[in-house]
Amino acid sequence: VLRSIRKYLDRPSRNLVVSAPDDDAAVWRGDPFVVATTDTMVEGIDFRLAWPGFAFRLLGRRLISINLSDLAAMGAEPRHALVSLALPPRTTVRDVERLYRGISEQAHRFGATVAGGDLSATKGPLTATAMLIGRIRSPKRVLRRTGARPGWQIAVTGSLGAAAAGLRLLESGRRPTTRTDRAWVAAQLDPVPQVAAGRALAAALTVGGDISDGLYREVERLVDPAHLGATIQIDRLPLAAGLRKNQWALAVKDSEDFQLICAAPAARMASAGRALDRLGLPLSVVGTIDARYGIRLMDGARSVRLEGAGYEHFR
Amino acid sequence: VLRSIRKYLDRPSRNLVVSAPDDDAAVWRGDPFVVATTDTMVEGIDFRLAWPGFAFRLLGRRLISINLSDLAAMGAEPRHALVSLALPPRTTVRDVERLYRGISEQAHRFGATVAGGDLSATKGPLTATAMLIGRIRSPKRVLRRTGARPGWQIAVTGSLGAAAAGLRLLESGRRPTTRTDRAWVAAQLDPVPQVAAGRALAAALTVGGDISDGLYREVERLVDPAHLGATIQIDRLPLAAGLRKNQWALAVKDSEDFQLICAAPAARMASAGRALDRLGLPLSVVGTIDARYGIRLMDGARSVRLEGAGYEHFR
Repeated sequence: VLRSIRKYLDRPSRNLVVSAPDDDAAVWRGDPFVVATTDTMVEGIDFRLAWPGFAFRLLGRRLISINLSDLAAMGAEPRHALVSLALPPRTTVRDVERLYRGISEQAHRFGATVAGGDLSATKGPLTATAMLIGRIRSPKRVLRRTGARPGWQIAVTGSLGAAAAGLRLLESGRRPTTRTDRAWVAAQLDPVPQVAAGRALAAALTVGGDISDGLYREVERLVDPAHLGATIQIDRLPLAAGLRKNQWALAVKDSEDFQLICAAPAARMASAGRALDRLGLPLSVVGTIDARYGIRLMDGARSVRLEGAGYEHFR
Repeated sequence: VLRSIRKYLDRPSRNLVVSAPDDDAAVWRGDPFVVATTDTMVEGIDFRLAWPGFAFRLLGRRLISINLSDLAAMGAEPRHALVSLALPPRTTVRDVERLYRGISEQAHRFGATVAGGDLSATKGPLTATAMLIGRIRSPKRVLRRTGARPGWQIAVTGSLGAAAAGLRLLESGRRPTTRTDRAWVAAQLDPVPQVAAGRALAAALTVGGDISDGLYREVERLVDPAHLGATIQIDRLPLAAGLRKNQWALAVKDSEDFQLICAAPAARMASAGRALDRLGLPLSVVGTIDARYGIRLMDGARSVRLEGAGYEHFR
């Protein structure tokens, strides 16, 4: 197994001085300010081998993408990835190789090396953890969850709801047939982290995050600690192609969309929007930060309710 | 659960600019040369909840220690830890808190912050992954597996075999009763990574590693890629207190001892030995690098055999 994944671990280069698994750890040239994150995917919880369209290569890509999305949420530039896999006995060498192929191609696509890896056996579900190390130029040019002020606009990148719609399709066991079906499933199985958008946002404004745990949950994180509130206009949500207007909850609650959220005064938001225009990515204002505690969902002037919003991995 | 572990995640400080879980990722002030490693512990493979003396706090400490041992193996100074846990439903908030307490105390003991963490649910065994980030002053002051030459001495730090003896005791289900029993079990459940020794070795010589996968396996890694060989004098192995001479295989094959190995010409080894003396840690010469391929075990002048040497996590 180690031999088969060896080719996917990057060789030493200008930045990577020592690469695993030749040694006990990787050594790289450092950066003045480092951004680091880790995220795990567990079989049976975050994915199922039985999903139609499941592939180890896509799993590898998604493992890197969920971590890249956290770097994107901070406005960081990806640099290095470390991967730790716990593999059940039924995993074949070919499966691991495909997993690593996905890891490697997604890391490289976003400018990161695969600097190290660890393999363990497990008697349980496949458990894949990655750590992504990125850099920022200055600790001032970083997106934070703190600092939003009443009256600021809230905006999201891209479109919403496709990943949740894809998950429902996968869980139903129905094979995707239409182009829309396939787009939804791709949003779930092979999401694209908004790395360039994160860096553009960090250059324009200071408050932001990613909404892979759900838009509602992320808005809570932006306002709750400061005892502020927010109003979200569900009629302004940029719903993914194929979603009906009454399916807005997919974009608010279940959403595992790899999109970013940000908050800023209107003028600053407009300038961020122009920066994202240049990347070909829409930035849609969907609400405002309020001085009043709590999150209110509005459809035009009408108040709407959402039960148990936000997807919690573990509570 | 998140609330309960929050106090074990370090707050922002001079080096840690942004700390998780307030944001999507941690931000820290970087170092010119970074050393990074990741390692996983899986319930049922690397530990059992049913072991007499098992405690979540010790598990947390061991999780950090196995990664610190990889940094020690490179001669690096620990800086930051990230942790990712996949927890079965039976895990209580109290278990997680104790796990994090162990993680935090062991990281702090060796100068590292706990910079970030991720929690997932799993339907399988508890799976704990940590990543440790350290620093070195220069890529020249690092211990590598490459570069050993025929005629060089091979030496190990500390004493050997206690961790393997402790594992056998734990697996037997027998409660440790004597002082020796308890020392063996402690070597398995709560090993001390040789961080200071690693830094001292890296200042004195260039070839080394850790032997947590077994002394035999690590010697293979030092010599095999260069098509060299080695002779290990089993009569010179520094066996842990309580081990009989005929139990030397515990020190060679099964060893999960958190000790370091190094190779150097005799004069350089002597100077490394003096540096370790100042740390109160013995450095014992146990063999030599040979030009002839293969690893030979000798008891005095007599050749001895070891079947299936080296413990493989996954092959």
